[in-house]
Amino acid sequence: MKPWPHFQFALALATTIMSSAVYAGDKDAVEYRQHIMNTLNEQSAALGQILSGAISNYNATAHLNAIALTASTALKAFEPKVPGGEAKPDVWAKWDDFSRRMTEFAQKSSQAAKIAKEKGQDEALANILDVLTCKSCHDVYRDEKKH
Amino acid sequence: MKPWPHFQFALALATTIMSSAVYAGDKDAVEYRQHIMNTLNEQSAALGQILSGAISNYNATAHLNAIALTASTALKAFEPKVPGGEAKPDVWAKWDDFSRRMTEFAQKSSQAAKIAKEKGQDEALANILDVLTCKSCHDVYRDEKKH
Repeated sequence: MKPWPHFQFALALATTIMSSAVYAGDKDAVEYRQHIMNTLNEQSAALGQILSGAISNYNATAHLNAIALTASTALKAFEPKVPGGEAKPDVWAKWDDFSRRMTEFAQKSSQAAKIAKEKGQDEALANILDVLTCKSCHDVYRDEKKH
Repeated sequence: MKPWPHFQFALALATTIMSSAVYAGDKDAVEYRQHIMNTLNEQSAALGQILSGAISNYNATAHLNAIALTASTALKAFEPKVPGGEAKPDVWAKWDDFSRRMTEFAQKSSQAAKIAKEKGQDEALANILDVLTCKSCHDVYRDEKKH
């Protein structure tokens, strides 16, 4: 009885199990960051409705806080070097730039939330377009899928 | 010259303008509450990934805070009595029950966020399924569209 085929089979099995494990982790990592970015998208859209006057009697401060909180978790969600979803490979190829911008976004949104708390939401919303500069990064790092 | 046709035209025009205005406002109200509920959905899903162990090295406290913040804005988003989206008419027909449950959800999630801050996230996550009882309300008040 030759041991070789069994070894090959065991190796193939082990490889399959390992790939599956890696694949499952990758899928989770992609999904997790999508939950974060979708949250930012939903909260920015709600804030956008307030800014445009479509929704009145509003609570912009809560939205600003939710954005600041979520932004603070965003960079970590991209740390696993797992292409997929709408993230372009440049996220990891140009990590220094990506992480600098994401950190800046987290800082700016945190600052806006602080201004809202201390000076009121109108003050915070006055320069909000300097905070929510989503497009400038998305143009470089996001490959928006057509749904 | 008969004034009647002009009056009819003016009336029709006024009605059209008013309906459009109401319609635009209704659409905005539906969209706004969808942004809120989608945020809760995304943040709960992120938390679910952490609870299941799919995502480690996590920041559950930030998610709990984001959920608590968003929950605190949710009831107001349903105040405009505008059916549409996935909200069943019972939201408004049974407003007392709906608002009681939504308020309870906001309180419970705020409490969980507080526990996370004071006693750590493990403590907060221990009873998290008593907080995120999304399904019990969705079964009654949400008509989930198949996407």
